[in-house]
Amino acid sequence: MTNIIRPTLILDKEICLNNIKKMARKAAEYNLKFRPHFKTHQSAEIGEWFRLFGVDAITVSSVQMAEYFAANGWNDITIAFSVNIREIENINRLAANINLNVLVENREAAAALAGKLMHKLGVYIKIDTGGHRTGISSSKTGAINSILKQLNVNSKITFKGFLTHAGQTYSAKSTNEIFSRHFDAVLQLKALKQKYKKEFPNIEVSIGDTPSASICTIFDGIDEIRPGNFIFYDLMQYNLGVCSLDDIAVKMVCPVVAKHPSRNEVVIYGGAVHFSKEAITNVNGKNIYGRILTAQNHTKELLPPLNYVSKLSQEHGTLKVTHNQLKNFTIGNFVEIIPVHSCLTANVMGHYITTTGKIISMMPKY
Amino acid sequence: MTNIIRPTLILDKEICLNNIKKMARKAAEYNLKFRPHFKTHQSAEIGEWFRLFGVDAITVSSVQMAEYFAANGWNDITIAFSVNIREIENINRLAANINLNVLVENREAAAALAGKLMHKLGVYIKIDTGGHRTGISSSKTGAINSILKQLNVNSKITFKGFLTHAGQTYSAKSTNEIFSRHFDAVLQLKALKQKYKKEFPNIEVSIGDTPSASICTIFDGIDEIRPGNFIFYDLMQYNLGVCSLDDIAVKMVCPVVAKHPSRNEVVIYGGAVHFSKEAITNVNGKNIYGRILTAQNHTKELLPPLNYVSKLSQEHGTLKVTHNQLKNFTIGNFVEIIPVHSCLTANVMGHYITTTGKIISMMPKY
Repeated sequence: MTNIIRPTLILDKEICLNNIKKMARKAAEYNLKFRPHFKTHQSAEIGEWFRLFGVDAITVSSVQMAEYFAANGWNDITIAFSVNIREIENINRLAANINLNVLVENREAAAALAGKLMHKLGVYIKIDTGGHRTGISSSKTGAINSILKQLNVNSKITFKGFLTHAGQTYSAKSTNEIFSRHFDAVLQLKALKQKYKKEFPNIEVSIGDTPSASICTIFDGIDEIRPGNFIFYDLMQYNLGVCSLDDIAVKMVCPVVAKHPSRNEVVIYGGAVHFSKEAITNVNGKNIYGRILTAQNHTKELLPPLNYVSKLSQEHGTLKVTHNQLKNFTIGNFVEIIPVHSCLTANVMGHYITTTGKIISMMPKY
Repeated sequence: MTNIIRPTLILDKEICLNNIKKMARKAAEYNLKFRPHFKTHQSAEIGEWFRLFGVDAITVSSVQMAEYFAANGWNDITIAFSVNIREIENINRLAANINLNVLVENREAAAALAGKLMHKLGVYIKIDTGGHRTGISSSKTGAINSILKQLNVNSKITFKGFLTHAGQTYSAKSTNEIFSRHFDAVLQLKALKQKYKKEFPNIEVSIGDTPSASICTIFDGIDEIRPGNFIFYDLMQYNLGVCSLDDIAVKMVCPVVAKHPSRNEVVIYGGAVHFSKEAITNVNGKNIYGRILTAQNHTKELLPPLNYVSKLSQEHGTLKVTHNQLKNFTIGNFVEIIPVHSCLTANVMGHYITTTGKIISMMPKY
């Protein structure tokens, strides 16, 4: 850590490997295909760590990301983002070279694919199992049939099955609620699978969020899981009760630049361009952008909840701390912070430094 | 616009030039040194546009940014971020080559600079005029004197004066409140200048925010302004009443990928990795991440406030729209969005495309 002089995203490779191993084992145990989401790390080098555990198929969130990982030797990729019909030429180029799957959720995209696709492509229909970000409600079989009819026009297209991102687990108030929301999503996908199995004997259903993949134990009828965040975890997952502090593989290290005892605040070099501005709500009802690590007796601990990152401007971060903690912050020293959402923090930082000092690069921005 | 296929940050150079011209003229009119903040655009190429209006001194928000612009021919730079004492070696290297100013606000940083500085350096004392992000309250002359004493130890250091970022203008509820908060900040700096003028005859005071620089007209006793955002402006400035829609030089162009009539929502390809997650509060009390542009009769207009970007995940954006507007969104077409905070949007996008299709690059991430 002696070379660190400014906000730095530190990555613990050992924890990452352990997180991958656990998830790969769990998938094997439940007879699930493990297709991890690479949008979390966006790094070819980190991608290689998954191969150690037999991973040969991945999920990405954009066509550009698929191009990047295809160029880095991955040839079985699902782009888990509803097809943007402006990118069909790029999809065509990728489909010519790798096993590619995409998602559709409306007739417009299905028709555009059917009209322009020139190479073998797998297509999942995106189902909204309750997250209400996007996708077709599982009850709307009319809409599903209409998409299937469109897809059927082009013999290069294989309908693979149904896919959901059960993002509703992120707003669960307890792990029990994660279990019940996940179970409900599983039931919906299973029912769809049953309904369409006769017509499509090879139909598969795929589920994707880190909370359920981490802690749930019912995957009856599910064929594939696509968690991404679990390789790093973060404060959001910790707050959901989905991981322990020891499972979190990332931390931001930031220098202290000022202290304001009159308002129990510490100013760090580390702002929105380092953390992103993802916030969760703290125990006091205020926005929180991160929590502060402390090393007590060689074990990693968090300072109590009323010590937290309370504000972020472009380069400044403000720590709200309790009066008794203020003395532990020294100008020029470093604070270690668990970010709220590791995917977005990694995205703005653009690279990692491992605990052994190695730089790991990420996909270029454009 | 025919080449656009994915979320794209469009920059109108003509508007930028006009915004620079207006601010440069205003500075000249009020006899203020114009030292624009380059953290907004982070681009050497855009930096050159300022030279057309006589700008030869700039502000940046990090040592790295100072290094980047110094390498691109700027030799009078103020790093408007309280000195991070871990970066003094870098500051020394820069100070050896250009006219460099930094900020201090505590004895620790002053002592570290005084102890290690080997080249000529200008130092401002950072004053908190009411924003309460960081800096010394203008009434704390004891703390100021203690810093001056530390700085005095090293003859390479020139105390330049007092500097504030009156960030309190951003939380103003009206333009009148911007006027009054600015006026109060001006009075505080003026009083400090008076107090220390005898001891430091060349003392200067510098003020920095875009809201006050754009609309205020009292700069009595102020020597320098350092606005940055004004080159682009954005929804935040528009909402503050600081710019008109025609002054905003940036927009995000994003493809529509899905529509959900049951909840009056449109899903776009464009998420937190494109917009950042800076939010402001909408008229309905909800978070808003952007507003939607519409071209009516060749004039740029915003759709009414209840049509807005209501959610952002990593790659998805959700537009909440009114029922009567829903028909105007078509899957595969583009929507144009004014981002909340152009500095952070530019930072995550990493580059610009001008209205004439030219790519403009930014400072590399590391």
